[in-house]
Amino acid sequence: MSTKLRAAIIGATGYGGVELIRLLLTHPHVEITSVISSSNAGAPIADSYPHLNQIVQDTLDAIDVGLIKDKADVVFLATPHGVAGELAPKLLEAGLKVVDLSGDFRLKSGEVYEKWYKHKPADPAYVAKAVYGLSEVFGEEVKGSELISNPGCFPTATLLGLMPIVKKGWAELGSIIVDAKSGVSGAGRGLGLGVHFSEINENFLAYKVNKHQHTPEIEQALSRVAGEEVMITFTTHLVPMTRGILSTIYVNLKEKHTEDELIKLYRHYYEGRQFVRIRDKGKWPATKEVWGSNYCDIGISFDERTGRLTIISVIDNIVKGAGGQAVQNLNLMMGWDEAAGLAFTPVYP
Amino acid sequence: MSTKLRAAIIGATGYGGVELIRLLLTHPHVEITSVISSSNAGAPIADSYPHLNQIVQDTLDAIDVGLIKDKADVVFLATPHGVAGELAPKLLEAGLKVVDLSGDFRLKSGEVYEKWYKHKPADPAYVAKAVYGLSEVFGEEVKGSELISNPGCFPTATLLGLMPIVKKGWAELGSIIVDAKSGVSGAGRGLGLGVHFSEINENFLAYKVNKHQHTPEIEQALSRVAGEEVMITFTTHLVPMTRGILSTIYVNLKEKHTEDELIKLYRHYYEGRQFVRIRDKGKWPATKEVWGSNYCDIGISFDERTGRLTIISVIDNIVKGAGGQAVQNLNLMMGWDEAAGLAFTPVYP
Amino acid sequence: MSTKLRAAIIGATGYGGVELIRLLLTHPHVEITSVISSSNAGAPIADSYPHLNQIVQDTLDAIDVGLIKDKADVVFLATPHGVAGELAPKLLEAGLKVVDLSGDFRLKSGEVYEKWYKHKPADPAYVAKAVYGLSEVFGEEVKGSELISNPGCFPTATLLGLMPIVKKGWAELGSIIVDAKSGVSGAGRGLGLGVHFSEINENFLAYKVNKHQHTPEIEQALSRVAGEEVMITFTTHLVPMTRGILSTIYVNLKEKHTEDELIKLYRHYYEGRQFVRIRDKGKWPATKEVWGSNYCDIGISFDERTGRLTIISVIDNIVKGAGGQAVQNLNLMMGWDEAAGLAFTPVYP
Amino acid sequence: MSTKLRAAIIGATGYGGVELIRLLLTHPHVEITSVISSSNAGAPIADSYPHLNQIVQDTLDAIDVGLIKDKADVVFLATPHGVAGELAPKLLEAGLKVVDLSGDFRLKSGEVYEKWYKHKPADPAYVAKAVYGLSEVFGEEVKGSELISNPGCFPTATLLGLMPIVKKGWAELGSIIVDAKSGVSGAGRGLGLGVHFSEINENFLAYKVNKHQHTPEIEQALSRVAGEEVMITFTTHLVPMTRGILSTIYVNLKEKHTEDELIKLYRHYYEGRQFVRIRDKGKWPATKEVWGSNYCDIGISFDERTGRLTIISVIDNIVKGAGGQAVQNLNLMMGWDEAAGLAFTPVYP
Repeated sequence: MSTKLRAAIIGATGYGGVELIRLLLTHPHVEITSVISSSNAGAPIADSYPHLNQIVQDTLDAIDVGLIKDKADVVFLATPHGVAGELAPKLLEAGLKVVDLSGDFRLKSGEVYEKWYKHKPADPAYVAKAVYGLSEVFGEEVKGSELISNPGCFPTATLLGLMPIVKKGWAELGSIIVDAKSGVSGAGRGLGLGVHFSEINENFLAYKVNKHQHTPEIEQALSRVAGEEVMITFTTHLVPMTRGILSTIYVNLKEKHTEDELIKLYRHYYEGRQFVRIRDKGKWPATKEVWGSNYCDIGISFDERTGRLTIISVIDNIVKGAGGQAVQNLNLMMGWDEAAGLAFTPVYP
Repeated sequence: MSTKLRAAIIGATGYGGVELIRLLLTHPHVEITSVISSSNAGAPIADSYPHLNQIVQDTLDAIDVGLIKDKADVVFLATPHGVAGELAPKLLEAGLKVVDLSGDFRLKSGEVYEKWYKHKPADPAYVAKAVYGLSEVFGEEVKGSELISNPGCFPTATLLGLMPIVKKGWAELGSIIVDAKSGVSGAGRGLGLGVHFSEINENFLAYKVNKHQHTPEIEQALSRVAGEEVMITFTTHLVPMTRGILSTIYVNLKEKHTEDELIKLYRHYYEGRQFVRIRDKGKWPATKEVWGSNYCDIGISFDERTGRLTIISVIDNIVKGAGGQAVQNLNLMMGWDEAAGLAFTPVYP
Repeated sequence: MSTKLRAAIIGATGYGGVELIRLLLTHPHVEITSVISSSNAGAPIADSYPHLNQIVQDTLDAIDVGLIKDKADVVFLATPHGVAGELAPKLLEAGLKVVDLSGDFRLKSGEVYEKWYKHKPADPAYVAKAVYGLSEVFGEEVKGSELISNPGCFPTATLLGLMPIVKKGWAELGSIIVDAKSGVSGAGRGLGLGVHFSEINENFLAYKVNKHQHTPEIEQALSRVAGEEVMITFTTHLVPMTRGILSTIYVNLKEKHTEDELIKLYRHYYEGRQFVRIRDKGKWPATKEVWGSNYCDIGISFDERTGRLTIISVIDNIVKGAGGQAVQNLNLMMGWDEAAGLAFTPVYP
Repeated sequence: MSTKLRAAIIGATGYGGVELIRLLLTHPHVEITSVISSSNAGAPIADSYPHLNQIVQDTLDAIDVGLIKDKADVVFLATPHGVAGELAPKLLEAGLKVVDLSGDFRLKSGEVYEKWYKHKPADPAYVAKAVYGLSEVFGEEVKGSELISNPGCFPTATLLGLMPIVKKGWAELGSIIVDAKSGVSGAGRGLGLGVHFSEINENFLAYKVNKHQHTPEIEQALSRVAGEEVMITFTTHLVPMTRGILSTIYVNLKEKHTEDELIKLYRHYYEGRQFVRIRDKGKWPATKEVWGSNYCDIGISFDERTGRLTIISVIDNIVKGAGGQAVQNLNLMMGWDEAAGLAFTPVYP
């Protein structure tokens, strides 16, 4: 008889879902008891992902709340937005814990959700209940919660880069500009010219300029911590690589501070949180230095000439920006060590 | 007896030099009469670049001003900074025209040069004489000049993106932030961990944050056009691809303008200049769309929420950002069609 | 009044078609008078390919033989197999010259075509008429022909690598093994997991092992030159890059020959043909050394230990392997210099 | 007091060494007690590899056998060839166990070593003692041994692909051709044009044709299993990716066999060995499907037309081809589960 927590993954054939499988397979306190996909039900998951041959023997289950209730204690929703909004309430009613990786429970305002996602928002009662699981910032709220809304990939990198300075009150809040770059896996496994190898390889481009749905998510979290409404400029770019996000963040500071002071502030803010690493003065992180891992690495540069702070923040978009932070949140929910199942080294080179 | 202009290329075994060879080989009014390298003199250039087998039979010449004088009318300097500063005066004294692709004659202030390049500046008399060859902006001055200082790759993309709005006086000059991204060829053919495939592939990183030597070059050109001193924030990033630069530029506008107005302004500014292409509303260019060509493509987005303009500007760093613009400047110097030898299509995909 | 040959391109929105546009735009004797696509008719081609903005203003025409007859003298068919088989006869009846880039007229046996292409073969009368346009081998037959069947990309690299040794009679014909590798553009612009960036980047794989439809095409040409039936082993692999094919070819030689002898044989065979370059002893070509150009570069190594010859042959699959050879064949058809419009240097790096 | 086995890694700043660190950090029975580098001694290893920040605090030790003896029970040698040959005997004399990842103890004949490595061979007494650690084939000999010679990356992929058919006696031994492809990390972290991003990205090439030093290593192991001398043709190619090897292997079979029979043979041969996975009929593995893991995946195709078997074998060159197999061999040496510390899933995508 197993004493492990039983986990189901809905949307197991997407990149977020398959990464959850990889992470949970070596988690000391969890076992995967159901991998679920609205398409392909009945087929072995290894048909969709041959790298899982002889590792995961399971066939895909259909979405069936009754069945999930029998097989699992916690459900990860790695589904497109719109789907989780429908499913999560039913799963919660059935007594399951839910970690949702989609955008459906992130924005507290249904109106704002509808404006940016062009989709009907989820039931406000559940939205109100959902805890925004930016682990290092709102981790205390995650403990004991039943419904975690896992942050987006860009918001994770960006908010971890901004929080110390915003919380401290040193930032000119109207000046924040976020220039974000992502590997192609962020677009998922769906087909389109925008993920076609011959179009994207040896190419670099901006997309959804001033229109990305992660904008209000970043603003909401910043506003909450700042205690006033924050509006940012946010641009996303596609990098010809598979994994990784780098956010370059520009902020005017109210007063000059030395880089030593700023680094001290950042290190103090993240004290005891092993997944955020602040670089020494004059060093900036590269996405490859967190590849395949749950780390967020941050470097800063203060320009005396312009009084502007530049923050560089990197994550692996599928780990810290999706599946890894979801597991970290589960760990926090359950009162386990936050690094359980996540204490591995980035893969380099 | 040839009636073509005879060109020598010094630094022919660097990426800028070898691109000049490619471009000049099909130029209707120019013939290459000497390819020169301080190292490898006496060896066929095809030993260094096998793609030139049976195309360029020449062996590399050593640097010898007397010899160059006999063989050439114009000299392209595709050498590291520091070298051109020494060589150009001698070549000019010998009666040759010079197009310098290095940074040695770009900055009018020797003090500023020394601060950013950590190198002794060139003779001020020659620096004063040098025309900064941003073709679409200062092309009139290029005509008839003897010494062209060819702009840097980042400044070319950035300045072409900024000029219309700065010239028009709509930009808040203190607000300019340039977030630039470059393919790896910008770092040249020299060896180092920073260009090592296994370190750079599937990786994205920032470098020289607030310290890149192209900063004062951009500021100098903006200041000249604005009529007042401009200071910018400038960050450079390395993209895991060979060619291409994309500059994302953020500017606060003094007043709101519609995107239609702004696009009209940009198209008007570049009227008649075939190498700058302004995208339609809601479209932004990708580096691949100018790959291998002399084009600079620009797209804009004005964010009503923040009053901030975002400009996306792309070039091929080795063509428009180096050898291509050098040829364009030669064309302007000589009074030829500015597109002579450059009227080819980007290579796609 | 133009005296240029008027060309129409059917399938202009595929990679082969768009490369034909690039090449013909600078061809001295040809003008493009119609770009044709079965989908997207009426839309500017620059909507599909923004790199053509302000270069090609044309909107796409529908397929209409009457209209094509009025606008063009020669038609390039860059369509999927099955389409050309239907169209070419009609175009020929209308008095047009046809260069077909698909596989529809390459295999002389309808039965063999049906077996490998799983599709009904074209009218045998037209198949009989079609000249297989491997320019350096069968170029004499191309002159004056009305219907050229342009070779496949793998066959071009492979056959150019094998012809001298097979023609000479030195090869053990039963021993030929072709291990071929292609960039992703060979799969075209259509969507699928097999061209999805996140699946193909940082990945290398074999596909269609022993089942690729280019197998009988290679065998047919070898058999014809050898004067007896040749059967080969042929494997194709996908390389995480956009352009380029490298064929590694293994052949047992009937007798030992020195590498000097072999290189001499190869150089003699291709004497006067500028697009095939034989490397010196101990040197092998890389795909990048022909990138964007019409060259085929070949290197060889003879292993004394095993008596086996290894041949390395590289091309750019979209130029020499498609559009470039098609233009070369047009040049031969028309009696022009075979390099007209193709005399440019590979793009490096 | 630790009861774990204490491991030292010499050559810790190479790719093989740093991968050993990654793997051993999560090994249940091992702790790393010394990371050693002939250069950089005294500096934190995280200075060379920032991804190890806050994970490995150690500074690099110099090579000092006395010190190593005090700190470690087992030593991994991840040094260039030539170094291990000198060091291993001293370490063994000091009572340490040694796993050597270089080529110094692989070839039983000093003469053959000298011919292919152009270097003086190691002391024959130690060469004789060394066990060639191809885990799934010679694992029985590894148990209890003191000196393991870890196989090369190409030999690992190739030999695992060939062993079942050679052992069974079905292969025509004179017909074996190995066409191998490797990611760039196989060339290590040293600098050179051959690993320069701008030269290798979007490029594919063959190297060391008929001259690779892994040739005799493959032949020696095949000969031993076949019971007669085997000579192969072996070609290596460089793939523009970081990790992964794919060997395409061609063998004539003495008699025809169905693919079902052959797959059964392969599965039987590797029964109980979890790191070798044989694909179903008509499926071939991709390097990405083993990325970051210790798996070797194999697919086969038998061509009825030519009587030739094609075998596709893939590994991650730094895991199964270096550090992973070294750990697997340590596990076997120590009598532990061979998967200890290696039971993780490939990283996909």
